Amino acid sequence: MSATYVHGYHRRENERLQDQAGTLVDLLHSDTSYPAGSVILEAGCGVGAQTVTLAQRSPGARFMSVDASADSVAEAKRTAEAAGLTNVLFQQADIFDLPFAPETFDHVFVCFVLEHLSRPVDALAILNRQLRPGGTMTVIEGDHGSTYFHPDSSAAHRAIQCLVELQRQGGGNALIGRQLYPLMVEADLEAVHVSPRMVYVDSSRPDLVDGFIRKTFTAMIEGARESAIAAGIIGPDAFDAGVRDLYRTAEADGVFCYTFFKGVGEKRRRA
Amino acid sequence: MSATYVHGYHRRENERLQDQAGTLVDLLHSDTSYPAGSVILEAGCGVGAQTVTLAQRSPGARFMSVDASADSVAEAKRTAEAAGLTNVLFQQADIFDLPFAPETFDHVFVCFVLEHLSRPVDALAILNRQLRPGGTMTVIEGDHGSTYFHPDSSAAHRAIQCLVELQRQGGGNALIGRQLYPLMVEADLEAVHVSPRMVYVDSSRPDLVDGFIRKTFTAMIEGARESAIAAGIIGPDAFDAGVRDLYRTAEADGVFCYTFFKGVGEKRRRA
Repeated sequence: MSATYVHGYHRRENERLQDQAGTLVDLLHSDTSYPAGSVILEAGCGVGAQTVTLAQRSPGARFMSVDASADSVAEAKRTAEAAGLTNVLFQQADIFDLPFAPETFDHVFVCFVLEHLSRPVDALAILNRQLRPGGTMTVIEGDHGSTYFHPDSSAAHRAIQCLVELQRQGGGNALIGRQLYPLMVEADLEAVHVSPRMVYVDSSRPDLVDGFIRKTFTAMIEGARESAIAAGIIGPDAFDAGVRDLYRTAEADGVFCYTFFKGVGEKRRRA
Repeated sequence: MSATYVHGYHRRENERLQDQAGTLVDLLHSDTSYPAGSVILEAGCGVGAQTVTLAQRSPGARFMSVDASADSVAEAKRTAEAAGLTNVLFQQADIFDLPFAPETFDHVFVCFVLEHLSRPVDALAILNRQLRPGGTMTVIEGDHGSTYFHPDSSAAHRAIQCLVELQRQGGGNALIGRQLYPLMVEADLEAVHVSPRMVYVDSSRPDLVDGFIRKTFTAMIEGARESAIAAGIIGPDAFDAGVRDLYRTAEADGVFCYTFFKGVGEKRRRA
């Protein structure tokens, strides 16, 4: 998994994930909090960008945050310590080889992970087995195919398509957000409810212009430049033209739209 | 204007507009109501699909609903009478040649109209002159470029693109929803606020599966079949394959997303 992580493990990428969590935190997480005493598995915590938000919003809950990358886990641990968190344990572990007994957790939280997996339903089914009956699973994913903007630009869409294609070549799916409902149902979760979280940005919202258009989305696309060129998906001039047009949408008459999806389902109770 | 109305003036189209208003009424209109005694211009009322909702939600307000098509106005009048409305007057009038004095209205309401106009900013500026200082303008538009679904299908996207192209050939813009903010600002409205209204449909929402995927969106695309083929934009087989794939998204594992945009702005007060 870690070898094909399309965004890469660079410092700038870490900063981007933190910026993203900072800007989008309310949109994505404001309706997630866990009762005191409950035990939550955060599967694929990465560098801890979501962990801090999660753990701070549920100070009485205890979190086990795991990631396949030992380096990411180490970074997440530093981030959590810097934030003064005392209710999170970190462990290096792969979703497909978890070291926990079945039904260990009251809740499972998975954010920006399925997009990188070639077997997302298998991953959800494995995580489902970690839940006690009646426990909940929360899944958050983006969908790059939900991106549109003004001024429209085919060059910009081609640059975005590079990331979609790289992720596909790595076995992932950058368009997975729209599929959360059928994926969670197929993984045998019950009472699945998916809600879209659309980021709409125009110049009346300067924080999002900077925080989302520039520092989150376009920075993510730019981060794929070398890989996309090396993979022969696009030439440097075409890529740079697309990125320029994405930045163009951050000007006064520009508009930018992107949608995340959040799904919540329940572990089936015994009959 | 009426000659190039891309959806056509057919009975089925009228039913589609009514279905659309019935299904989407809360999403689009629940936050629009006008105080008793206020006078509102509904510009481009068509067959009255929105008029009934508007007038019922603001029983103490008085509406002047106009449309460029005399046939549509006659149909709207019948619809309003059937609904028992007593607070609406209808008049045949073109937005670009309105028979009212400046600053006649407290509020202006425009829904699914700008998409058909080659000069949307001019239309908004003309309507702005009809407003008293401090009055509000409400604008609602769709955006066919906001459409995505699961299973994804390039054939379905090509069928949708036919409607976009027909509307472009008619001088309109089927991607106008995302542009509401810059258009309203350019028309000199103040305090413009645009909010997206996303229709997210999966099989946990059977009313929307039927009411939106089948009866609203796909029916609208199907309605453009003969025109698209006659215009040489697409062949019948390719078009039909696209429509089949749109209906496919209404099955149990399908997902469908579309976004409307609603903008509200104020007429500038005198300095």
